[in-house]
Amino acid sequence: ITGAEGGAPDAPLVLVGAHPAARLRGDPRVRWFHSVNAGVDALLDGGWPAGVLLTRTVGRMGERIGQYALAWVLADCQGVPGHLARTAAPPGAANPPNWPRGQTALVYGTGHIGTAVASRLGAAGLHTVGVGRAEHAPGGPFDERITAGEDGPWLGRARFVVDALPLTDATRDFFADARLSALRGATFLNVGRGATVSLPALGRALAAGHVRGAVLDVLTDEPPAPGHPVWELPRTTLTSHSAGITAGTDITADFRACWEALRAGQAPELAVRVGRGY
Amino acid sequence: ITGAEGGAPDAPLVLVGAHPAARLRGDPRVRWFHSVNAGVDALLDGGWPAGVLLTRTVGRMGERIGQYALAWVLADCQGVPGHLARTAAPPGAANPPNWPRGQTALVYGTGHIGTAVASRLGAAGLHTVGVGRAEHAPGGPFDERITAGEDGPWLGRARFVVDALPLTDATRDFFADARLSALRGATFLNVGRGATVSLPALGRALAAGHVRGAVLDVLTDEPPAPGHPVWELPRTTLTSHSAGITAGTDITADFRACWEALRAGQAPELAVRVGRGY
Repeated sequence: ITGAEGGAPDAPLVLVGAHPAARLRGDPRVRWFHSVNAGVDALLDGGWPAGVLLTRTVGRMGERIGQYALAWVLADCQGVPGHLARTAAPPGAANPPNWPRGQTALVYGTGHIGTAVASRLGAAGLHTVGVGRAEHAPGGPFDERITAGEDGPWLGRARFVVDALPLTDATRDFFADARLSALRGATFLNVGRGATVSLPALGRALAAGHVRGAVLDVLTDEPPAPGHPVWELPRTTLTSHSAGITAGTDITADFRACWEALRAGQAPELAVRVGRGY
Repeated sequence: ITGAEGGAPDAPLVLVGAHPAARLRGDPRVRWFHSVNAGVDALLDGGWPAGVLLTRTVGRMGERIGQYALAWVLADCQGVPGHLARTAAPPGAANPPNWPRGQTALVYGTGHIGTAVASRLGAAGLHTVGVGRAEHAPGGPFDERITAGEDGPWLGRARFVVDALPLTDATRDFFADARLSALRGATFLNVGRGATVSLPALGRALAAGHVRGAVLDVLTDEPPAPGHPVWELPRTTLTSHSAGITAGTDITADFRACWEALRAGQAPELAVRVGRGY
């Protein structure tokens, strides 16, 4: 935590960090907390003090998570795991790729991250359907925009499902049996929050073939312990919450943007709407 | 081979296929051969009859090879092989990605394929340097354009080298000890022709660490036999000449374009310049 400590006893405090220090929780001098992370669910858990501005770091996370998603989508379409395995155990038969053009990707979350993911998938020829709140402007890189209540007809057609949801009361266990069992062979990627997916339901969907394979960058328990059931999920690859790592320059750039907006008397674009949860 | 056979004994013949039938080689009725492949080195080997038009199929190969290259570049940057291996043998340490933005990719070949490859790599943030004949127009998606004689200073800076060269007398064993030993940890991808790379030299460059890893879609002997030395190359993945597979609709579309150009009295864009070799 970098604060403005050491000033007058009643001077306003601006804090930057992952969590406010426990002793400063509820301190009336704290006026603004800038989170070095994009996800703020852990900060909001248990309530956020009224009147304290909360801003967050997004940085180039959208670009990076978009490339992560594209890497795994293309790895899937190009059969990268199969080629790696065949090279380890030669010789192999020809393994033609399965081109992404025209295949449907459902992208859940239509904010910074979902938009950047769709932009990269769209450039590779996928048909992108953004699933998000109606208030998010239509258009952007999405070929279609729907709300979460409208995804039913799309689930059976999706070749890829990208979870870029924030964690809120509305999104906890969002991907449970109802949605996952409606899939027909989609590859599932989670770049959002671990708790938006029910791992037991994902296991059932993988076993039944509703989910063809999974790539999980986030889990509720990170890193998972050696005996954790997630290691037993078939056709599942775990990455290490590394899809959208925040660099130090991202934090300073986003903090500076917030600072300059406030000096100009404007609400920072990266201000968290606490009531909404992100 | 689909010909206009069955017409008058001296009627001109238009043939479509991979190779002209041996009995039609040198037949003066043959006026035009449309190759269902993009690479025509095997057709030109031993000479091409004067006055016979040779056209070729390119189709959407550029787009597809571009996605193949992007898939392996992003797989490399995102550590896909490492994540797959770690998931197979849990648990794993965090493995942050190595973002492509600003890294240099040398793309050898600045025609259809090299251009499409650079376009996709550029969209992922790589700095692309096209290496090709001076007659190819500058610009396009390349950040820089050089000729093959000018690549020396770039070899030590390249993070990726993509070989999209046709096979001609000038490109046989183009990647031999001189070029490969000048690399400083580049990942090498071959989507062009197998014989443009000396496999013994590649093996030495891999052993010395000049080449960090290799992805080879093409080889002189395809598929390689189980005892072939290519299987022993370290950190090398073989794919099955599948980067730019030609679909049936590509052949008909490209043949139609040639046909229509000829009817309009124009030289087809896909006509091979036999003296040049592609």
